[in-house]
Amino acid sequence: MQALNLRAASTRLSAARPAPAVAVPTALPAVGRRARVTAQASVEAVDFNTKVFKKDLVKFAEREEYVVKGGRDKYALLPKAFEGIKQVGVIGWGSQAPAQAQNMRESFADAGLDIKVSIGLRGDSPSVAEAQACGFSKADGTLGEVFDIISSSDLVVLLISDAAQAKLYPRVLAAMKPGATLGLSHGFLLGVMQSDRVDFRKDINVVLVAPKGMGPSVRRLYEQGKTVNGAGINCSFAVHQVVRTLNNGKQHYCGVFHPDADKQNVLMTGCQDKKIYQWDLETGDCLQGMSDEDAFKRSVESITGPISRTISTKGMPAVYNGLDAAGKKVFEEAYTASFKPAMDICMEIYEDVASGNEIRSVVLAGSRFDRFPMGKIDQTYMWKVGQAVRAKRVEADIPVDPFTAGVYVATMMATVEVLREKGHPYSEICNESIIEAVDSLNPYMHARGVAFMVDNCSYTARLGSRKWAPRFDYILEQQAFVAIDNKEPGDKELFGKFLSDPVHGALAACSEMRPAVDIFVGGEGSDVGVGAGGARTEYRSTAAKVTAA
Amino acid sequence: MQALNLRAASTRLSAARPAPAVAVPTALPAVGRRARVTAQASVEAVDFNTKVFKKDLVKFAEREEYVVKGGRDKYALLPKAFEGIKQVGVIGWGSQAPAQAQNMRESFADAGLDIKVSIGLRGDSPSVAEAQACGFSKADGTLGEVFDIISSSDLVVLLISDAAQAKLYPRVLAAMKPGATLGLSHGFLLGVMQSDRVDFRKDINVVLVAPKGMGPSVRRLYEQGKTVNGAGINCSFAVHQVVRTLNNGKQHYCGVFHPDADKQNVLMTGCQDKKIYQWDLETGDCLQGMSDEDAFKRSVESITGPISRTISTKGMPAVYNGLDAAGKKVFEEAYTASFKPAMDICMEIYEDVASGNEIRSVVLAGSRFDRFPMGKIDQTYMWKVGQAVRAKRVEADIPVDPFTAGVYVATMMATVEVLREKGHPYSEICNESIIEAVDSLNPYMHARGVAFMVDNCSYTARLGSRKWAPRFDYILEQQAFVAIDNKEPGDKELFGKFLSDPVHGALAACSEMRPAVDIFVGGEGSDVGVGAGGARTEYRSTAAKVTAA
Repeated sequence: MQALNLRAASTRLSAARPAPAVAVPTALPAVGRRARVTAQASVEAVDFNTKVFKKDLVKFAEREEYVVKGGRDKYALLPKAFEGIKQVGVIGWGSQAPAQAQNMRESFADAGLDIKVSIGLRGDSPSVAEAQACGFSKADGTLGEVFDIISSSDLVVLLISDAAQAKLYPRVLAAMKPGATLGLSHGFLLGVMQSDRVDFRKDINVVLVAPKGMGPSVRRLYEQGKTVNGAGINCSFAVHQVVRTLNNGKQHYCGVFHPDADKQNVLMTGCQDKKIYQWDLETGDCLQGMSDEDAFKRSVESITGPISRTISTKGMPAVYNGLDAAGKKVFEEAYTASFKPAMDICMEIYEDVASGNEIRSVVLAGSRFDRFPMGKIDQTYMWKVGQAVRAKRVEADIPVDPFTAGVYVATMMATVEVLREKGHPYSEICNESIIEAVDSLNPYMHARGVAFMVDNCSYTARLGSRKWAPRFDYILEQQAFVAIDNKEPGDKELFGKFLSDPVHGALAACSEMRPAVDIFVGGEGSDVGVGAGGARTEYRSTAAKVTAA
Repeated sequence: MQALNLRAASTRLSAARPAPAVAVPTALPAVGRRARVTAQASVEAVDFNTKVFKKDLVKFAEREEYVVKGGRDKYALLPKAFEGIKQVGVIGWGSQAPAQAQNMRESFADAGLDIKVSIGLRGDSPSVAEAQACGFSKADGTLGEVFDIISSSDLVVLLISDAAQAKLYPRVLAAMKPGATLGLSHGFLLGVMQSDRVDFRKDINVVLVAPKGMGPSVRRLYEQGKTVNGAGINCSFAVHQVVRTLNNGKQHYCGVFHPDADKQNVLMTGCQDKKIYQWDLETGDCLQGMSDEDAFKRSVESITGPISRTISTKGMPAVYNGLDAAGKKVFEEAYTASFKPAMDICMEIYEDVASGNEIRSVVLAGSRFDRFPMGKIDQTYMWKVGQAVRAKRVEADIPVDPFTAGVYVATMMATVEVLREKGHPYSEICNESIIEAVDSLNPYMHARGVAFMVDNCSYTARLGSRKWAPRFDYILEQQAFVAIDNKEPGDKELFGKFLSDPVHGALAACSEMRPAVDIFVGGEGSDVGVGAGGARTEYRSTAAKVTAA
């Protein structure tokens, strides 16, 4: 059963029937996700109010949080959730936009709702052809110029790149209809505006829905959910501000969610990139006496295959418990040596994000793209080795390398520890640090390769990868691997803490709500799960290729 | 002949005889440096005024700049330059403080000046023993508690770590005597205060002298200058604000220098770190079929030895011109493929620094040091290979590897190009991008190894290394080396531009003023050139070891 884990702070939203802004959160089943509101809780259990969905109380380790679970069985609720929305304008055609737009369009149709989903693009955008190939057209008004679509939509889902948002937001906000809702998939814009010391217009609603995976995963899991109720991707959501009514005295109330939503969302970038690239760590050095292909199998393949599957279904300690005695010793040494260096970098990522540095860097990078376009990573020797390995893959023969497993799990636990220290609740910790990796990113990379996955992510995610992956690489080489080579005595207490960490119980609680299907992405040359989208440098869906031909 | 290249903007300092603040710039020969003021020039030639030193007009490529050259022959000018200064308080005992304090103490003695140089340290500082071993003592008042020394000094040279400056500056400034001079060696504090939106007290002078090398180099070149007039290290300086007199109506005038001084100084961190680590690039991958020691010779040794010496004495094109036809082809391919990726990162460094991001990151990192101490890098396999290579070194046999040379020179030229685009004059470009590397950092590393050099740098420099070195590594691997492997056609125009770049003429003009001696640092196990200082994690001078025993 797909879980919608909605969290909100106390009673702010309870006074009135949900205003239009609430359409996005409650529309979650339409895009096929688990979701939760990111908020600093002011009550014992992390709670929220909804008049549309049923909420469930779930115990995550020592704390209870409310969640909402849902799949296609919730489509009957969509008319109420989307009340007042006649047109949804999805702006952009990057990683997320093609997925969210197509998912919504199909959900509205299935639910019998007469809501138009329109794509807003620059007239000269090279993505126009691909959007047309996906069935959006100028003739029926489902494809148009950015500001035309913004000014005619009741819900504007702004999915242009973060750097473009930073540049264009004054015009975007000015173009919106009074009372309309701005939907974001990232806390980035809020961070930019806080840095600029400006607020959103008070006559619009501002909400966020942040799926825990790149666009092609959002699309692929939705497609799989058509035949298996509950398939989808988990996500966070937040309400920043809601226009209660347009013509009463109290025109708005500001969301209680925003500082935390901001922090958590930008954090996501760093943490997920760390996981995307984790395996770089082991393969950067030539493993003595081992062939390149064997080294690749014992590092990348091991993580994206059996290690991720075990964590996803049985938790992190199961990876360790599944090893023989010699393997357990290696895992423990690798874990113990890697945890603190990894946490050093995780803490740096968190604090760089929280301080606004990361946002400023992304905006600056965006301003350089014309001259220094985002580089692809798929041509390096290592990823070519990976391609050869995948071509010959026998899934059951992929080894669980105990050293790789120890380093990987230590890095994952370092992320968990940083989020916990910074006050994030367990549902969030599990989703950000573990589930997104093992249920979405890693399986995708397992099917298509790490480089393909990264080169298909948003610019922000790719910039984060490019910045932080090498840092993990270097610090592990300089500190962790040195400690192992020098046979420094491991920290028994640290490892004991790992085995008994409460996060394992929290993850088990999450696992009970995990989708009924695993993501399935086609291999080399297949279009299954590739999706559409202009964020990618070269990859195009078959539809687009056909159109272009 | 040692060059003091002083630049200043127009006539601001010309109206009156230099106030006490000018003591530091004019004291430059005392610490044995080439120096220049960093400023946006408002006149044709980059000019400044001095009533103490003779200035020389030098043509750097298409633009003229005034410089001051000097060595021990200028000691007769010290009494005038330091007029009004009875005590210099050097605060801290990191990379720079032991060098600057000892140099000044010896220069004052040689010049017959009765100026006391006192070290300010926390009472519980582990550096107290080493400062005592270097002849500073509580008994004669040349060693004392930080704020006691600050409040009793006429010139306070603040050389605690940048992160500590960010934390302590309100107390430091409050403790200073009215009319005293604050001396800095980095624009960092100014950046922090701009970010905090506060100004310096208006009743103190604020100046900067930034040597182009770490403390042990500053000390070593000064020592060498005792027997060879003119040996020393080049440096920048800037005047931020000067108290004209303490009791007239116009109490101060703000320096014209500060925005640029800030930018340039923080930039230095990034650019020098890039060079420190450049060779990581080639050795991160195992070179096919080559022994580790041979790979090390063809990368690190090649750069720190013959390539640096050639650039230092004959310029960058001489490296290329010294190769045979096959070598020239390899150099050109490596250069052409590496230039743009390297410039991508150089531009990111520059803009991250200029935006204040780098400063905030250093302050945040400082707040984590108690928990995550600065890691050393000297235990990695690669640096151990280097140790073995140095032990067997025959200097004349070190090869000039054409691939290494092409990548290295491309990265250096990328730094040149970024500084030029951002409006920096050639004397600065040459000093920051080339001279500091080939005349100071690289020879030091050649003698003692890269890791030893890095682990002896300031925290800020080490943080910069840790952040940017891996970025160069990855982008070159992902873009430059891919282009070379794929035999992409090189950009003939780009390479032609390199050969005829005006920077070569500017560097030649600089070279005419270079010190009469090269830095000499002892090899493994020697204390010659190691210096003293608490920034280092483990290394201690013999004096300190004796004291501790």
